[in-house]
Amino acid sequence: MRLSDIGERRAVKIILNLISGGRGGDIGLGDDCAALDLGDDYLLVTTDMITEKTHIPRGMTPFQIGWFIVAVNLSDIAAKGGRPLGVLLSLGLPRVKTSSFLRSLIRGADTCATSFNTSIIGGDTKENPELTISGSAVGLVSKDEYMPRRGAKPGDLLAVTGTLGRAAAGYIAVKHRVRNKGLIKGLYEPVPRLKEGQVLAGLKIVSSCMDISDGLSSSLYQLRDLNNVGFDLNLDNIPIASELLTMKKKQSRINVVDYALHFGGDYELLVTLPSDKYSLAEQALNSIGGSLRVIGRVTKGKRIMIHTSKYSRILEDKGYEHFKKHMDA
Amino acid sequence: MRLSDIGERRAVKIILNLISGGRGGDIGLGDDCAALDLGDDYLLVTTDMITEKTHIPRGMTPFQIGWFIVAVNLSDIAAKGGRPLGVLLSLGLPRVKTSSFLRSLIRGADTCATSFNTSIIGGDTKENPELTISGSAVGLVSKDEYMPRRGAKPGDLLAVTGTLGRAAAGYIAVKHRVRNKGLIKGLYEPVPRLKEGQVLAGLKIVSSCMDISDGLSSSLYQLRDLNNVGFDLNLDNIPIASELLTMKKKQSRINVVDYALHFGGDYELLVTLPSDKYSLAEQALNSIGGSLRVIGRVTKGKRIMIHTSKYSRILEDKGYEHFKKHMDA
Repeated sequence: MRLSDIGERRAVKIILNLISGGRGGDIGLGDDCAALDLGDDYLLVTTDMITEKTHIPRGMTPFQIGWFIVAVNLSDIAAKGGRPLGVLLSLGLPRVKTSSFLRSLIRGADTCATSFNTSIIGGDTKENPELTISGSAVGLVSKDEYMPRRGAKPGDLLAVTGTLGRAAAGYIAVKHRVRNKGLIKGLYEPVPRLKEGQVLAGLKIVSSCMDISDGLSSSLYQLRDLNNVGFDLNLDNIPIASELLTMKKKQSRINVVDYALHFGGDYELLVTLPSDKYSLAEQALNSIGGSLRVIGRVTKGKRIMIHTSKYSRILEDKGYEHFKKHMDA
Repeated sequence: MRLSDIGERRAVKIILNLISGGRGGDIGLGDDCAALDLGDDYLLVTTDMITEKTHIPRGMTPFQIGWFIVAVNLSDIAAKGGRPLGVLLSLGLPRVKTSSFLRSLIRGADTCATSFNTSIIGGDTKENPELTISGSAVGLVSKDEYMPRRGAKPGDLLAVTGTLGRAAAGYIAVKHRVRNKGLIKGLYEPVPRLKEGQVLAGLKIVSSCMDISDGLSSSLYQLRDLNNVGFDLNLDNIPIASELLTMKKKQSRINVVDYALHFGGDYELLVTLPSDKYSLAEQALNSIGGSLRVIGRVTKGKRIMIHTSKYSRILEDKGYEHFKKHMDA
């Protein structure tokens, strides 16, 4: 059977079933990062690949491509509460690319890394007919601060950092040729929530955490399957990005809620934590200029419901990729 | 200027000039691995990418592709004397590949990892028009055992593990359609010298080390530039692989010496060490079933000379890629 028939998620399942995975004490297979037992700490290791045809839109500058590959890898470290030690880049470069393209790409990667107190520490450069970039990031987190994906308990609050829909607003701007560098930056230059992740981890109160780069709905379905829980989501509490509301004014036909729930590309952190600890977490994030908003609650059973003052319904499982295809159709 | 005009080495120089590279205490930029300061240890991190068009010959089985990407990453850990903690795989997969292709590839990768007491600990799977696989390996080495590329001193002996030309023999076999699985294995299923690297590192006598995957001549020119030294190479002492000599009997026109000096693909370790410590190293490698052979000496000045009983000449700098083009022309 061809991979086009089985899709990416089943391909990942095939892989996970075949590999031996880690020594005793290692964890994290299928999580944002691998977490290797170093005694008091976990060594976090993650890798993410992008390729021109499927992940790099035409309007993205080389600087932004470099920034993006570093940011998405650092976001995986952030989601576990880690501090990054360094980033490696494997570059598969077509012969027709120019040296100034390469320079801008590396400047973008280096700028992102140094913006988050880390650096590019190595890599590999190879010829490839298709521009393909694979990043790897390593980081450290104290074992007692590590935030797993598995650990959400019924009764816990569900909360998210920042706002949802910044990347979607950028996507809509590009699609409708709205020239606005700020909006497009939200899509192409995502901000990994390293500070937020480290502060949350330091409180040792987070029961589960992941980044929502795949979209909120897709992330919730992943947490549901891992934790055997459900969620009650309160739509009115979801912090919709002001950028998305601005785009709505220009493009009245867009469905703000759909974009905020499903689009993805926002590298925010989705956490669950005991309700009596929430104000502690909120204050800690406010104190570093971040934000945390309760958007729902962990429930028994495996339903993910969305509630407003007017209706309740089951949340659809529409991931980033699916949604993009749907939007473009 | 296009990358096709400047070549891979200049592209790497462009990159190295632009990146900030590591915290105080981190080393290894431009070495086989990045080496991150963890107190008593260095954390070794490395990444290598291969792609179907330029690195994966048609006859290579999916199992061998999986084995290969893991082996080449582990070889970088071996060259620094490290023990591997785990390997990550980023897979860029064309839609037309089958799930059985994926299964075999993962089995090859997992078999290689477990053969060397490590494992696949994570990764990423993405659609890509061109089969592209990037591996990353992490490992640990005590700081006082770490074997750098920089450190060779005039007067040191130059030595190599194993034999040279196994991969070349496999290449010739494939090229001339000689059906011999054993020969082809030497090319497609290289053996990372982890045990050898760890034993050599444990002796704390190696002044510099790298793997010779790019070929002996290319590796020597790299060591020369890093260390500001030259080499006297004794051709009669070079341990030519029996597999290459066997191929010579079948294909009398092949130049055994050229293949052994330039072809590459042998993941052996090239080391320099003080001459009074050599027998210690040789015995230690023999005791684990390995081998070490003196092939020359580090000299002042920057000439790399090759000596036989009949003549002396300057060693040409012909790397793996160059040589392959030359051979195929």
